[in-house]
Amino acid sequence: MEKRIVVLPGDGIGKEVTKGAVEVLQAVGERFGHQFHFTYGSIGGEAIDTYGTPLPDETIQHCKDSDAVLLGAVGGPKWDTQPPHLRPERGLLKIRKELNLYANLRPTSYYDSLAENSPLKKEYIENVDLLFVRELTGGLYFGKPSERVERDGKEAVVDTLYYQKSEMERVIKLAFELAEKRDQKVTSVDKANVLESSRMWREVADEISRQFPNVELEHMLVDNAAMQLVTNPKRFDVIVTENMFGDILSDEASVLTGSLGMSASASLSEDGPSLYEPIHGSAPDIAGQNIANPLAAILSAAMMLRLSFGMQEEAKAVETAVNQVLDAGYRTKDIGRTVNNYVSTSEMINEVKAM
Amino acid sequence: MEKRIVVLPGDGIGKEVTKGAVEVLQAVGERFGHQFHFTYGSIGGEAIDTYGTPLPDETIQHCKDSDAVLLGAVGGPKWDTQPPHLRPERGLLKIRKELNLYANLRPTSYYDSLAENSPLKKEYIENVDLLFVRELTGGLYFGKPSERVERDGKEAVVDTLYYQKSEMERVIKLAFELAEKRDQKVTSVDKANVLESSRMWREVADEISRQFPNVELEHMLVDNAAMQLVTNPKRFDVIVTENMFGDILSDEASVLTGSLGMSASASLSEDGPSLYEPIHGSAPDIAGQNIANPLAAILSAAMMLRLSFGMQEEAKAVETAVNQVLDAGYRTKDIGRTVNNYVSTSEMINEVKAM
Ligand SMILES: CC(C)[C@H](C(=O)O)[C@@H](O)C(=O)O
Ligand SMILES: CC(C)[C@H](C(=O)O)[C@@H](O)C(=O)O
Repeated sequence: MEKRIVVLPGDGIGKEVTKGAVEVLQAVGERFGHQFHFTYGSIGGEAIDTYGTPLPDETIQHCKDSDAVLLGAVGGPKWDTQPPHLRPERGLLKIRKELNLYANLRPTSYYDSLAENSPLKKEYIENVDLLFVRELTGGLYFGKPSERVERDGKEAVVDTLYYQKSEMERVIKLAFELAEKRDQKVTSVDKANVLESSRMWREVADEISRQFPNVELEHMLVDNAAMQLVTNPKRFDVIVTENMFGDILSDEASVLTGSLGMSASASLSEDGPSLYEPIHGSAPDIAGQNIANPLAAILSAAMMLRLSFGMQEEAKAVETAVNQVLDAGYRTKDIGRTVNNYVSTSEMINEVKAM
Repeated sequence: MEKRIVVLPGDGIGKEVTKGAVEVLQAVGERFGHQFHFTYGSIGGEAIDTYGTPLPDETIQHCKDSDAVLLGAVGGPKWDTQPPHLRPERGLLKIRKELNLYANLRPTSYYDSLAENSPLKKEYIENVDLLFVRELTGGLYFGKPSERVERDGKEAVVDTLYYQKSEMERVIKLAFELAEKRDQKVTSVDKANVLESSRMWREVADEISRQFPNVELEHMLVDNAAMQLVTNPKRFDVIVTENMFGDILSDEASVLTGSLGMSASASLSEDGPSLYEPIHGSAPDIAGQNIANPLAAILSAAMMLRLSFGMQEEAKAVETAVNQVLDAGYRTKDIGRTVNNYVSTSEMINEVKAM
């Protein structure tokens, strides 16, 4: 097969980790006889510096013409004092809208070799395998009005949580489809005892669930979910929720097994190329030192192989290689709580390629 | 001193645990020479059953005429299928508005004797001592519109996150005042990279912090806070945030040290009696069995003594009694992971009174 991949390294360690993902994809291409064409685009802080905007139109067009997008990370203290429209994160929010990336998938997996890095006791996390499906283009993130107002002569402010029913339907449906291939359980998270949008969300989840008689649906309040992720993460299979709840809870979930540096994500488009990125940020404090962990970016590339290109075997090969490298004891600093010698970013990349 | 306390037992185990708090307050009154007058009011599911509303006007007036309110818990499956305005939680939301309970205080404390019950490794939670200050009468909980809408011929829904600047000011100011008497550190949690309300929140926090030169202020994004509560809870002293973020994060915090059954809260009023309640719910599954843990309600009573009545010594006496009972090995079932013999609710109450 032949595939065009746009790489958006972004800021900080984004460049170093996407380099790892690209090299591993190249190795996969050679081994399985695929041609991956890589081209590069600009986003985030470096785009602000070069083009005066966090997401140039050329980048958008470039991505739309591709088969999949690989993103590093954006942001850094350099741009933290900019006005909102000139902040690196704006590039991220805009690309989600432009590419119609309606569903953010974040698996939380258990690695026995990394359990030592977890704040949780081993018996609480052993074999945890949960998948967050976060709605990514609606809710408080994009609702209007979002502005300062004056009411009764008083300074005030308003943000808006807005959803079309169809936006709920497509992401909840996806969650059920994914659960069908996993442990047949969907936990739909909302705040139906307070929010009208959550009451609609719950109705939609009930409706969709009728199309999936073999998948169990449970509703859970967001505050309860925040507790149960800590007290009993094993009880979850697929968790689906709206944008802001998903932002908070999926980050909480990502640290449970001690493998934040290993956490990959996929942002699926309804009608165009999807986007893959590690969950971690641009980590300006360690950028350029060749010590960042490239595994989350590499595992994001594996998600790309599986979800955008339908290459199951190839994806599995990458995941197996990562597991073997960990089992062999290789650790970058962030996951090296129990070892004395860390490997560098480039050493880690080479080890994965060699497996 | 003479004080009028209104008790709202509510539903499920609410009755059993408030009974414990009342008996302990009576014992304190005898020992320290105070007169506490207890009267009872109706709220939640039992109010729906008796009066057809989750918060009768008599209850509101009754509370307004008191010096402090002690609440048990509300809710249960019996009322889960009711329309929104006939749900027990509505009583809770309404009493917050009616009594102007603008700030919800939730301490998370470490009990060495309970560390075994925690999902977290001991080294992560040892001596954790953090205090959540959650804004309680604004934001998404009360903003209008909150309704179904049709836009461009499509079914949709909207909720509104609305804040007056003055609502932010009073709760953030309180957080600084509390931090002054603790470890002089305030973490203000927001989502300033997305929400306009969060950008105002951040400005207000910066403004208020100038009045407290000896208190350190840090800003933290809500998703990062959800992670750091798990990975490094010891780094926090006072955490202040808006209503919905506070709901989610304070529940997450409440399970960290393994002592949810011990978690008390105070909801402070700007201009009238404040309200005290355990964090746990009405637990219908164990109601009436005399096995619920009364310590969260008892510790809520201690907060009442300190914060509403200025009775420092009396509050300390209750807290010390609770610690001694735990050190002596008494456990109700929920905190008894490491013991073989549980005590009942009433035995636990008697032990605290006897100390
Ligand atoms: C950077 C920020 C706008 C973004 C979000 O809130 O969606 C990030 O936290 C994420 O989860 O990808
Ligand atoms: C019952 C519910 C409305 C309430 C809230 O969300 O405030 C509860 O979760 C709480 O935290 O007291």
